[in-house]
Amino acid sequence: MKGNRTQPPSGTRDYLPEEVRYREKIFNGIKQVFEKYGFLPMETPAFERIENLLDKYGSEGDKLIFKILKRGAKNKNCEADLALRYDLTVPLARFFTQYQNQLPLPFRRYQIGTVWRADRPGRGRFREFYQCDIDTVGSESLLADAEIILVLTEVLNSIGDFEYVIKVNSRKVLHGLLEVYNIPNRKEKDVLIVIDKLDKIGADGVVRELKELGFSNVLIERIQRDLKKTGDELRRIIGESMIGKEGLKEVDTIISLIKPLLVKGKIEFSPFLARGLDYYTGPIFEIFVRGIPGAVASGGRYDNLMEMFSEKQVPACGGSIGIDRLLSYVDLKKVSGVLNPQVFIPLWEESLALEVFGIASELRRENIITEISLDDRKIGKQIRLASKRKATYVVLYGPDERERQEVVIKNLVTGEQKSVNRNQLVRTLKNLLEN
Amino acid sequence: MKGNRTQPPSGTRDYLPEEVRYREKIFNGIKQVFEKYGFLPMETPAFERIENLLDKYGSEGDKLIFKILKRGAKNKNCEADLALRYDLTVPLARFFTQYQNQLPLPFRRYQIGTVWRADRPGRGRFREFYQCDIDTVGSESLLADAEIILVLTEVLNSIGDFEYVIKVNSRKVLHGLLEVYNIPNRKEKDVLIVIDKLDKIGADGVVRELKELGFSNVLIERIQRDLKKTGDELRRIIGESMIGKEGLKEVDTIISLIKPLLVKGKIEFSPFLARGLDYYTGPIFEIFVRGIPGAVASGGRYDNLMEMFSEKQVPACGGSIGIDRLLSYVDLKKVSGVLNPQVFIPLWEESLALEVFGIASELRRENIITEISLDDRKIGKQIRLASKRKATYVVLYGPDERERQEVVIKNLVTGEQKSVNRNQLVRTLKNLLEN
Repeated sequence: MKGNRTQPPSGTRDYLPEEVRYREKIFNGIKQVFEKYGFLPMETPAFERIENLLDKYGSEGDKLIFKILKRGAKNKNCEADLALRYDLTVPLARFFTQYQNQLPLPFRRYQIGTVWRADRPGRGRFREFYQCDIDTVGSESLLADAEIILVLTEVLNSIGDFEYVIKVNSRKVLHGLLEVYNIPNRKEKDVLIVIDKLDKIGADGVVRELKELGFSNVLIERIQRDLKKTGDELRRIIGESMIGKEGLKEVDTIISLIKPLLVKGKIEFSPFLARGLDYYTGPIFEIFVRGIPGAVASGGRYDNLMEMFSEKQVPACGGSIGIDRLLSYVDLKKVSGVLNPQVFIPLWEESLALEVFGIASELRRENIITEISLDDRKIGKQIRLASKRKATYVVLYGPDERERQEVVIKNLVTGEQKSVNRNQLVRTLKNLLEN
Repeated sequence: MKGNRTQPPSGTRDYLPEEVRYREKIFNGIKQVFEKYGFLPMETPAFERIENLLDKYGSEGDKLIFKILKRGAKNKNCEADLALRYDLTVPLARFFTQYQNQLPLPFRRYQIGTVWRADRPGRGRFREFYQCDIDTVGSESLLADAEIILVLTEVLNSIGDFEYVIKVNSRKVLHGLLEVYNIPNRKEKDVLIVIDKLDKIGADGVVRELKELGFSNVLIERIQRDLKKTGDELRRIIGESMIGKEGLKEVDTIISLIKPLLVKGKIEFSPFLARGLDYYTGPIFEIFVRGIPGAVASGGRYDNLMEMFSEKQVPACGGSIGIDRLLSYVDLKKVSGVLNPQVFIPLWEESLALEVFGIASELRRENIITEISLDDRKIGKQIRLASKRKATYVVLYGPDERERQEVVIKNLVTGEQKSVNRNQLVRTLKNLLEN
């Protein structure tokens, strides 16, 4: 019983020191990329008022929201008034509406934060995970859409040597296609949900589900043929619709802006890319990495989302990188070891504790990472502990050294050691560590 | 209605970009101090199994725990299976028990993370706030206790120029005192809870509450006299008890280790300091800053806490800094502006977008923070936007510049501007920004 209780709750993780350091290094790298483009950090609480989250992610999403019970013994009706955030986009809409007068416009923001979804856990799928979001609020320009994609590809490049493909589409292309297929407006949403599953269930699966929606065989056969065509092959029929044409222009503009700047990776038009969420209105994209199932990054334009909290329409676009899923496929070996103690000071005997504390303080004042031994067991054992902690130097200070006002500096890597004058210690160690 | 909904939930906060930066600077400074002493980072999830948190913080604490409803429509009984973490200490006990074979011993750890308490919000009191904890698990040595206090004072020094007092006591001193007062063991806990409120309710309040507990007038008068005495005056009577004597020795050792190393601040023996939580077993401390009510940092030794999750007793001590409360009293002005865009590139006309994207990419490749304009409104307006964003340089690239293969670099601070060859841009800007 006791053993079980010490694991983190299902779908969540603990991080050991080296994992925290590795992740912090990655996150700091990501922040640096975001900042380089002028994106600004912001933060919101872990939970929101429950009514602000419900009905935003579809009925499937609502089931995955972690709800927080109202406090107080009187809560007989099992009322939940708060909920853990499900993504960083709805909180952004609330945030922007609240502070828009204090924010620069266009507001380029980034947020790296935890979100919670009561999903069934699996490899790369967690109930508590980080999202790295960037959004540009207040600009209709396609430059904003292209910039989002560019930033995310640079983030990918900063994390690893990935082979990736950026798939671009526009919701307008899809609307155009459905117009050409003569699919009535009221069925549009259902059809998009089916098409969105193309990656998961394949063309056959899509055809099967379209049949279930009751479309004619002629239409379904046509769609079946089109699903196999490339974007360029479909251009002509998409162009038969006004809105489809507009969508094609969006896609072309974005691809033309990004293509010349891609250091590696490919970008292509993907006319059946749909994206699950309802709220997209224009260009959408997904980035796929070879060897990792599903998209590692995605996003799009959502010009109506801000209306959720405000009367006025504010154009916006954004993207998100599923950093936890990505990292779960990346080798953890590249951990930087710089934060191991540089110096370890054993405690020769209890009576020297005060002086050892003093020596350690002198070193730390020079920003030398110094760990002291907490007890005076055999000196050999303490030095072994220093090696285990991967310290570079050990400073030995026993009764003899005290007598002579000296210290011994031992290099744990080479085994070399030398005595120096007590008041030369800091300078000597600083020189040793800098070389 | 809509306006209300855009505020963060009661007791929580949103952070605007400059606030995030300010806080990150502070947190990074704190981490650096922790690392300098050999403390290692670790992380645990935001929520724990509810049974791991209940009954750990007293009945008052239990009421303040945010409980998460079990998922699924079948949850008719309003069952909560998870709860947001209330502090970082109970999660540490779970974590240490789970991973002890993979951790160095003694395990010095730090964690800077959010905790949630459904407290009544007020100045410096939030429902979502950060705790900065350090703990040393696996050492009985008083050096560990002293080190914890030393680290926390260095953290205070790194944040601001505070006048602080460290008050030190030992639970053993209190046990000794109660022994001398002949207070029976079963009443000990109640008396300690009353004494712990000394700061809040004053000596008169303590006397009143002791009367309510039914102690004799003779005893209460004695306690009343003693409450006014200094630690040194009380030494003799504490020393009448064996355990009291032991406690005095602990306090003296810690003070003697810290006193010579205090750059500023005072440290003193405080025989009635009790600390609220049950689990302390030895030395305890609180740090007070002039001008801020209540302790800003506190901690102590809790040799039995690990038994919560494991059969074996593991000695441990730790401390915590209430960083959000502290920061709510600190002036926010010291914000570093280094992350404003260094360069802003207006968009002369839409047709130049591709080239502006290219110029921005070249600059970012050299880690120059570059923001581009997203639309081609009047150039004067765009330059005003650049000033508002506090950019240092504007790079102007219009049709004339394109013709001559040049760019204009304008310093927004001095107003100076000069033309340079297009392919000299990166080098020139790098030089300008480095000087």
